[in-house]
Amino acid sequence: MILAIDIGGTHYKLALVSAEGQIHRLHQGSTDRTGGAAWMIPRLLQEGRTLLTQAPASVRACGIGFGGPVDFAGQRILSSTHVGGWNEICLPRIIEAELGLRAVVENDANAGGLGELVFGVGQGCRHLVYLTISTGIGGGIIIDGQVYRGANGQAGELGHLPILPEGPECDCGNQGCLEALCSGKSIGRRAEEAVVRQPARGAELRRLAGAGPLSAEVVFKAARQGDELARELVEETCLYLGMGLATLINILAPEMIVLGGGVSRAGETLLAPLRQMANRFAMPVHRSLVRLEQARHPDQAVLLGAVALARELV
Amino acid sequence: MILAIDIGGTHYKLALVSAEGQIHRLHQGSTDRTGGAAWMIPRLLQEGRTLLTQAPASVRACGIGFGGPVDFAGQRILSSTHVGGWNEICLPRIIEAELGLRAVVENDANAGGLGELVFGVGQGCRHLVYLTISTGIGGGIIIDGQVYRGANGQAGELGHLPILPEGPECDCGNQGCLEALCSGKSIGRRAEEAVVRQPARGAELRRLAGAGPLSAEVVFKAARQGDELARELVEETCLYLGMGLATLINILAPEMIVLGGGVSRAGETLLAPLRQMANRFAMPVHRSLVRLEQARHPDQAVLLGAVALARELV
Repeated sequence: MILAIDIGGTHYKLALVSAEGQIHRLHQGSTDRTGGAAWMIPRLLQEGRTLLTQAPASVRACGIGFGGPVDFAGQRILSSTHVGGWNEICLPRIIEAELGLRAVVENDANAGGLGELVFGVGQGCRHLVYLTISTGIGGGIIIDGQVYRGANGQAGELGHLPILPEGPECDCGNQGCLEALCSGKSIGRRAEEAVVRQPARGAELRRLAGAGPLSAEVVFKAARQGDELARELVEETCLYLGMGLATLINILAPEMIVLGGGVSRAGETLLAPLRQMANRFAMPVHRSLVRLEQARHPDQAVLLGAVALARELV
Repeated sequence: MILAIDIGGTHYKLALVSAEGQIHRLHQGSTDRTGGAAWMIPRLLQEGRTLLTQAPASVRACGIGFGGPVDFAGQRILSSTHVGGWNEICLPRIIEAELGLRAVVENDANAGGLGELVFGVGQGCRHLVYLTISTGIGGGIIIDGQVYRGANGQAGELGHLPILPEGPECDCGNQGCLEALCSGKSIGRRAEEAVVRQPARGAELRRLAGAGPLSAEVVFKAARQGDELARELVEETCLYLGMGLATLINILAPEMIVLGGGVSRAGETLLAPLRQMANRFAMPVHRSLVRLEQARHPDQAVLLGAVALARELV
């Protein structure tokens, strides 16, 4: 049995998971962004202790997926993408001291890729790319069955592939990154801009959104219903994402690209046109090779990847 | 001592090279494109035999870099990028039967990357990307000191990164690939188009080209002399190349990117603005990490990579 932890900017999760990836107990909560690490760490320890008392078998190790850059070799969290107070925190050491469990921490997108490789749609692949599209876009690259980290441990920044040099500003400080065009937040922003430009054509999108903001979810729903402006927005999304995927395909030639995160729930409304677009830009030699698949565990991939890492400790 | 062979679309080379990368004898000839493999193979064998009689020490193996897709696992040439008759040719087997040497074949850009890693500017690197820019653009990716080949052996198609979705047609059948914008041929074509559009501003470029066509070499020479149109062409080249390099950096986070091929001879006229542009599009975390360097052996990197592979055979 493994204690698995997923620390994101919006939610955090703790779970008891078997070494075979069976989730026995799951606790989920909302991240207190203003509270930062000082709020989160005591909470993790307290809820971890409670979970450990409920374990049906002995818990051997702890795996952590973290939403921000991680120095894997040094087992240090470098910073959080969304939350303060996480600079240079050796969370595994704290877990070991407080809970008596050997622990390992990995960036959440890397963990997600590993989760889908070991327990999900990517089983049997040697080389796999995981792209998680939610508020932002994260990436995990698996080479020869292992997370690829590059020279500085920070490889796989797939949300920041340059797509449009004069495109919209990105949170990273650049312009026209994949994330600035195709994250859930960016799809919503592009929809909002389109509806402002073309209010008549945008009426159905506005109606579906109700009192709320235009979200990626609304755009895909409207596209499924045949709304023309929504279809154009999906097409544009697939153009940019397709360029990004073809880039990954031409460079890495993986067996599979797995899409995870909230936006991947659009399923074939997104995947079918995206396969076409990725094939349009990929080299002919790669076209029949690479499978583009939806994550099998869109909510649990990070926890499962953390399990895959932690079970190596024992 | 190793017999090293480099088979390109314009030239071919045979050399006697020590296992430490010292070139003792080198023979170079022009490739007969219409003659194809039927012309090349007997010539390689004949010139190989001659070289072997001149070897100062016993020749232990043969390494071959080939200009086209190679099935490394099957040790088969799949096809040539430029020349006919090379479909499904097991050249190492022919060399073994005819010259009595164990032999290994690799794609030339992969061999070039390995050559710079083992004997060139990339010594000491674990992760390195080699980009060779001449008539076309080829790439070789080194991960953990080994050529990375991907699931189908054809990873590293760096000339075909999608840059401008509505850009000029590429030989691969797509539009707006890096090669269609920044290869030597493409830089020349863009210069030609610019001079036709702006004949007054293009007068100096035209003068420097003389009776010949506008080449990348002429563009870089004019830029060094301060010609404005040439400078704009170099800037545009660096924008596209910089996007491609930043893409590689964000995905792979290598220690070094090495530029080889004829266009890399432009040296700092190309490298200085290119470093700036790659840094503009790369994630901040990677900016200080990745060194962008000119190949140390622009003409011999393929031969030297072939040596690095062949010396593993003995």
